Amino acid sequence: MADIPAKTEIGVTTGPIRGSRKIHVGKHRVAMREIHLEPGSGEPPVRVYDTSGPYTDPDARIDIMAGLPALRRDWILGRRDVEAYDARQVQPEDNGLKGPDRSAGVPQFPNVVQRPLRAKPGMNVSQMHYAKRGIITPEMEYVAERENLGRERLAEYVRDGQDWGASIPDYVTPEFVRDEVARGRAIIPNNVNHPESEPMAIGRNFLVKINANIGNSAVASDVASEVDKMVWSIRWGADTVMDLSTGRNIHDTREWILRNSPVPIGTVPIYQALEKVGGIAEELTWEIFRDTLIEQAEQGVDYFTIHAGVRLPYIPMTAKRVTGIVSRGGSIMAKWCLAHHRESFLYERFDEITEIMKAYDIAYSLGDGLRPGSIADANDEAQFAELYTLGELTKRAWEQDVQVMIEGPGHVPMHKIKQNMEKQLEACGEAPFYTLGPLTTDIAPGYDHITSGIGAAIIGWYGTAMLCYVTPKEHLGLPDRDDVKVGVVTYKLAAHAADLAKGHPAAKVRDDALSRARFEFRWRDQFNLSLDPDTAEQYHDQTLPAEGAKTAHFCSMCGPKFCSMKITQEVRDFAAKQNQAADSFLAATPAAAPAEAEAGMAEMSKVFRETGSELYMGAGGREHD
Amino acid sequence: MADIPAKTEIGVTTGPIRGSRKIHVGKHRVAMREIHLEPGSGEPPVRVYDTSGPYTDPDARIDIMAGLPALRRDWILGRRDVEAYDARQVQPEDNGLKGPDRSAGVPQFPNVVQRPLRAKPGMNVSQMHYAKRGIITPEMEYVAERENLGRERLAEYVRDGQDWGASIPDYVTPEFVRDEVARGRAIIPNNVNHPESEPMAIGRNFLVKINANIGNSAVASDVASEVDKMVWSIRWGADTVMDLSTGRNIHDTREWILRNSPVPIGTVPIYQALEKVGGIAEELTWEIFRDTLIEQAEQGVDYFTIHAGVRLPYIPMTAKRVTGIVSRGGSIMAKWCLAHHRESFLYERFDEITEIMKAYDIAYSLGDGLRPGSIADANDEAQFAELYTLGELTKRAWEQDVQVMIEGPGHVPMHKIKQNMEKQLEACGEAPFYTLGPLTTDIAPGYDHITSGIGAAIIGWYGTAMLCYVTPKEHLGLPDRDDVKVGVVTYKLAAHAADLAKGHPAAKVRDDALSRARFEFRWRDQFNLSLDPDTAEQYHDQTLPAEGAKTAHFCSMCGPKFCSMKITQEVRDFAAKQNQAADSFLAATPAAAPAEAEAGMAEMSKVFRETGSELYMGAGGREHD
Repeated sequence: MADIPAKTEIGVTTGPIRGSRKIHVGKHRVAMREIHLEPGSGEPPVRVYDTSGPYTDPDARIDIMAGLPALRRDWILGRRDVEAYDARQVQPEDNGLKGPDRSAGVPQFPNVVQRPLRAKPGMNVSQMHYAKRGIITPEMEYVAERENLGRERLAEYVRDGQDWGASIPDYVTPEFVRDEVARGRAIIPNNVNHPESEPMAIGRNFLVKINANIGNSAVASDVASEVDKMVWSIRWGADTVMDLSTGRNIHDTREWILRNSPVPIGTVPIYQALEKVGGIAEELTWEIFRDTLIEQAEQGVDYFTIHAGVRLPYIPMTAKRVTGIVSRGGSIMAKWCLAHHRESFLYERFDEITEIMKAYDIAYSLGDGLRPGSIADANDEAQFAELYTLGELTKRAWEQDVQVMIEGPGHVPMHKIKQNMEKQLEACGEAPFYTLGPLTTDIAPGYDHITSGIGAAIIGWYGTAMLCYVTPKEHLGLPDRDDVKVGVVTYKLAAHAADLAKGHPAAKVRDDALSRARFEFRWRDQFNLSLDPDTAEQYHDQTLPAEGAKTAHFCSMCGPKFCSMKITQEVRDFAAKQNQAADSFLAATPAAAPAEAEAGMAEMSKVFRETGSELYMGAGGREHD
Repeated sequence: MADIPAKTEIGVTTGPIRGSRKIHVGKHRVAMREIHLEPGSGEPPVRVYDTSGPYTDPDARIDIMAGLPALRRDWILGRRDVEAYDARQVQPEDNGLKGPDRSAGVPQFPNVVQRPLRAKPGMNVSQMHYAKRGIITPEMEYVAERENLGRERLAEYVRDGQDWGASIPDYVTPEFVRDEVARGRAIIPNNVNHPESEPMAIGRNFLVKINANIGNSAVASDVASEVDKMVWSIRWGADTVMDLSTGRNIHDTREWILRNSPVPIGTVPIYQALEKVGGIAEELTWEIFRDTLIEQAEQGVDYFTIHAGVRLPYIPMTAKRVTGIVSRGGSIMAKWCLAHHRESFLYERFDEITEIMKAYDIAYSLGDGLRPGSIADANDEAQFAELYTLGELTKRAWEQDVQVMIEGPGHVPMHKIKQNMEKQLEACGEAPFYTLGPLTTDIAPGYDHITSGIGAAIIGWYGTAMLCYVTPKEHLGLPDRDDVKVGVVTYKLAAHAADLAKGHPAAKVRDDALSRARFEFRWRDQFNLSLDPDTAEQYHDQTLPAEGAKTAHFCSMCGPKFCSMKITQEVRDFAAKQNQAADSFLAATPAAAPAEAEAGMAEMSKVFRETGSELYMGAGGREHD
């Protein structure tokens, strides 16, 4: 079986993830993935959350030139609170070009919407606005169906977790979603101009989400590769994608990504604004920034990172840091503030920005421009001064019913992670926290997906709603396709570990199904239930490539002498006897091994002989001893 | 520069780790590694803990056929409490051979010690015995010197950590080591017949240690490869190595490993005992097991995993588990108990085993044969019943002054990790905890070094003294050389994250040095200070291979427009002005960028042009926005 399914001619990966099929559930036909297990196992299929959009649906027709279907269009228009209008004209500088010559640029998306939508005058089209007025939108219904995944068969589920004050319900109702959005504890980022997106929620009482970063490196042929990276990252589980493109062709690259993305897209608008002034931070103006916001709003960006908390008085607090200011957006604004000796225009114009956000339903991702870039700088004065300002801005955004999440660090040793979560909850009124890692040590470049995956799992457990991935290339270079996958899978497992620890009712279903498959030597089920079936099978095959090894009732590492399944069957029989007569405890006779296991052993012995291996194959096996 | 240094003819990796050199400190010439930084940086060299033995010392002559020098021989003999005696004769079944024909076996080590050492009658040669009598051994002095690493320049260090009740001193004295060993809170595993080992301590008030598992796969040519795996794993930081060989040639493989290992070697003697009875657990006897202990004691094994806590009454407690019994040693003993309907001979003969241990100074690693093999089974009755028995056995071992550590799980969701540590401390009187991971979710086979690295960092922070590594192949296949390295580096970073969070005085030195190097664009220093300099440089070069990129004062990801070093310099000048005159706050003029940074920018611009790249290269860079 091919490891990676065939690509379309313009290079995105399509086709189902192995061992599973797309299903559509409920009145909104919410897409999920169902993993089917060996018929003989008696196990029901396992439903898992699916971020991959139509790309994994064999029945969908994928045409990158046309973009995805506009899933939400009728819902948006049905509310009768938007109007279409003539879009702002695209300027050469939007793509970082000096003149009208686009030859150095990327091809324009063929089907650009000429008349985008925005709120009618006096209207507010944010999900928070509807929620506060008691309206349950189709988006909220979609989210409820999506989050409930697998819970319908959890009647017997006993809550087991430590939730640190979260309020995770046994079952998610549309009303619960509405209430969470109304009180600002969750956001549903979906710009009215990105109707292709499948609604999803970010909030501590929902499943922990992850974000993947992509972005063009400004050579013409790379647009297809960025679209492919987007599709590739959602295939493995990215819940949102940030387009961090810089340099040239920012506008056109974003258009291709948005039109083909079923997940919310975030950006950092200051990057593009900086391009428009030739990279000279001092020359940034409110007018240029505002124009960039409108440009991106019309294209359909779902959330904006805005570093409005980098205030002039906080900048000197970074002077004694080991790593100063490490956020790019933070650096730009710090430089602007210093050059002009005045307060940031992002802070001063915050309410005007909010006016724009609410007209398109764009969510804030309030950037932590002063986050620590090293263990040494964690939890310092500058970081927390900014955080409290973000809390103040959160309340101002909420006054206009605009959705908000808060970005967090960065580099934090384990013992200082909890304080980050606690202060964020306190300062920002439970607005969703969205953190980068954090990295728990600085000494492992090349392995920072792991140093940060540790911090991500911990802060996710404490209540962070979305985890921004880090790839193995962090601090060293630009991630390629393989790095993107490793980053996404690492963060997916960290988010899942957090869900388990919080006691999320649906999370444990998959662990238990996989553990049963593992214990019963259903190798294919074990592969298919894993986050990355291709890698699991590939690693297995490196040791025991024979096809029989995947169906035999045996563990490749322990061999038949240590078959714990067989021993456990004996234990079960023994325990059953004990229950029949407690006083016969020591006299009970172990039952003979069941015929099925015997057959499996014979089969596996053959496999072992065929592969030239001994009965057990050394270290690193099933468990360590 | 070659990624992997040249090998000797029999295949072990030698030569210094790049950017560093071996140094020898104090009266015992304790080996450390010193990383030298760019002369222009004004930074002192950074001393790091070094487990790699003579293999990274260019002045050492490595001869695998002869084995390592007997570092501790004079110390052992100097105590005048050991005697040499005629070794037990090696039997064909020791190597899993039916007859005297060794042709299917591995070559015998050329220089086997014919007269091993043991305590004179009535004597006890354990480090704990000396410690309890107030004797500070050279081994304890060696450990103190080794652990102090870098602390001599920490006069200004402010303790910053959360230690959960640990008692980490500012400075480690030999007396502190003695006291920790005397009270059982630390062990120094070193068999008198393994004089090649460099003393090290395992205990919660010392640096967190890691173990790597190796083991032969029973083909003749593999002995060299197992020795190489041992050398390879200690090169990257394994503090101890367990030889989990099974199948044939167990005895001879172990001899090669021991004679060439500068780190303590652990084994699970029941594996070899089982081989001697043809793999039929029911046929195991105390006599065969005892003979195996003597055999391995004479060879010099430093610690034995003994699953003496798998008691008959606990076995039925595993009947309702999702994954039953997953420990191989646990399975063997459970099967034996069931087959004979009687209590485990390991439990019943425990004091006799202890008699053997004290005659050679072998430490117990009391095995957790009933540990959970899945999230579903974590922290259950069977697991904790066994743990309390291990606590009882700890006290019995301590009555004979034998050193003990306790093995722990396994698979545990994050919210149940703390209870494991707390119960272990309570049940086992603070004897060192030695855990496998734990894995924090079951759904990521292929990534279990990460699912477990998360749990390992957390439990290390809570107080676990040694972390047993897990490789990417866990549950799927046998680790190769690359997997061993990834496992070791992952666990090294987890252990280091734990040290940082506990507030270990020496830990932060390396993070801070690396962060300063990162911030000042000293790329080579950043690579050399990292846990894996080869991978760090390789990842860097994938994006910007030009040699200039490694010396330019620039970040490959952000480019000159976002140079945070430059901005920070401006911030520092600004802050300095502020201090001069607080009321001139808004009037301060940013200083011009220093000449050095300007030169760096010019150089980097050239690099960017040469590599055909734009000014900044997209996502996943220095930080996420």
